[in-house]
Formats: sequence, C-alpha cells, structure tokens
Amino acid sequence: MALDLTEYVASIPDYPEKGIIFRDISPLMADGEAYKQATAQIVQFAHDKGVEMIVGPEARGFIVGCPVAYELGVGFAPARKKGKLPRETVKAEYKLEYGTSALYMHKDAVKPGQRVLVTDDLLATGGTISATIDLVEQLGGIVVGCAFIIELNALEGRKKIKNYDVLSLMNY
Amino acid sequence: MALDLTEYVASIPDYPEKGIIFRDISPLMADGEAYKQATAQIVQFAHDKGVEMIVGPEARGFIVGCPVAYELGVGFAPARKKGKLPRETVKAEYKLEYGTSALYMHKDAVKPGQRVLVTDDLLATGGTISATIDLVEQLGGIVVGCAFIIELNALEGRKKIKNYDVLSLMNY
Repeated sequence: MALDLTEYVASIPDYPEKGIIFRDISPLMADGEAYKQATAQIVQFAHDKGVEMIVGPEARGFIVGCPVAYELGVGFAPARKKGKLPRETVKAEYKLEYGTSALYMHKDAVKPGQRVLVTDDLLATGGTISATIDLVEQLGGIVVGCAFIIELNALEGRKKIKNYDVLSLMNY
Repeated sequence: MALDLTEYVASIPDYPEKGIIFRDISPLMADGEAYKQATAQIVQFAHDKGVEMIVGPEARGFIVGCPVAYELGVGFAPARKKGKLPRETVKAEYKLEYGTSALYMHKDAVKPGQRVLVTDDLLATGGTISATIDLVEQLGGIVVGCAFIIELNALEGRKKIKNYDVLSLMNY
C-alpha cells in the first residue's frame, strides 16, 4: 500500500521570513520506505522517456536525482555553484529576489543528443530549474522531463518551464 | 567483469593550487555502469553492518550516499553548511587551512541507537568526515563505518578516524 508522502513533509511557518511556509522534505529522505516510493514514482516517469542521464542542481537536487540515476542504470551530473567544478564549465545565470546567481556544469557532463531528466526537490519560481535546463541545452542535451518532490503552485514556476514535461509528487 | 574505476577519475594538476593534483570523480558519477559498481561495493560493505541510515556531508557526500540508502532501503540525512537546514540543529566545527568551518544536522535526523554509515567522495585530511561523525554521535547514532570513493593516503585522514571501520574504493 502506498504511503501518503505529505506526512513526510515538515512545514515550517515564517521561514526563511515572515509569511512564508517552508516545505522541508528531509523527513521524506530520512525514511527508507518514503524515499523508495518517491524515487519509484520518478523512475516510472523517466523510464518511458528513454532517459540516459540525470542532472540536478546542488544540493537537494542530488538527493532526489541520484537514486533515480542508480535505479535506471544511468549517470548523474551535478549543476553547481561557482568554484565547485575543477574542469572547463558552461554557465547559466538566474534571477534572485535581489540580484542574480549562477550555476555551472562541466563541459563534458552531458553529451550532445543525450536524453536528460532534470531533478530538484522543489519547484518554486522556476529560476534554478530554468538555469539547469539552460546548461543541459548549452551542452546539446535534450531535456525530456523535469521531476520534483514538491511544487508550490502559487509561485507559478511551471509557467517558466511550460515547454517541458513536468512531474511533481506533491502540490501546495 | 568489473570496471577499473580509476579510469573514471579525472586528475587535474595544480588545482585548486600549484602542486596539488585534484581527483575529480564526476566522470565516475556520469557513467551509469561505473556509478552502479561503486555503489554496489559500498552497499556490500554496509550490508553486514546492519546499517539503518546513511549520512553524508554536502554536497558530494550526497551523490555517494543517496543510491546506497536507496539500495539498502534506508533513509538518507544530510550534514549541511550554515543556514541550509530550517529546523533545530546540532553543530560540529572543523579546522580548515586558515580558520574553521562548521556542519549542521537536524536534531531529529538520526535516532538514538541508529546504526549509521557515513559517506563522502574523498578522504583527505579527515576534517569533514570527523565533523560528520561528531554530529551523528551528538544525536546518539552509532557510526558503524565510513565509505569513500577515493582516499588520499599522504594526507593521513585515516588516522583521524582510526576508531572506525573505513572503506575506500581507490587510494592515491
């Protein structure tokens, strides 16, 4: 029988600032059965798309994507913040509330034509995931889907990635 | 037939500074077969120890530990830098070349008596892994082993964790 994954999300009021409810998936990851079930749902989504590589932004995107890569028998490539990757990189900037940030991937992390699933824990405004998609496409990869544990509907991140097939396990 | 995992390590001379050879495991993670083999070796090490939880420091410790957790059917808990965890935490400091840094875990991330495997990509001086062990033990967890993809012998990190059972897949 399937678990109700919402029971494994901790909701923290007024974090990181007043009026925001932070959705924390660490209880889900900490429970072997819940983590397996969430992973299985993403694997099922990925399987029919012929996914050849998983890419996730640091750091919670790794926790979501790595077991999916393992189960599918494909590789995992991280999208990282500045100064974390030792070899030649590509770069994608994205907007924050104030200013901009950037993500990087190794130039050989994705091969041209490779079918890529992008994973993260949370779809909020969609800035991080758009930058990650941009990196994969700069490398010639084909983004065949995006998978999240949680989607925050009110922030409308899905609009920013409307050309991609999106799976969210839970919506708030 | 087993792969030679050393073929999946990129060695970058003079990074991050002159005289240092940086060992980059991203080619190993990016190859589905190599990633599966490395994971299987750690799973085998963990299995007989009755591991109930995997803990890894951010962020490459996640890439190593998450598929191990998934395969064993246990949970994963991250040790993170300051400001990344929304709920009550414990803290462990560790020395850097200049100054100190700190890692944090949620107070409920490990249960008292739980048998924990700690994972990271690289054992260098042992500072990060010692802080991670400290956090698990503050929470009452029992560290039954530490697993790394690579160990840099010359930096003698193993001395710092000599009371623990250590697996390294490759030594340099």
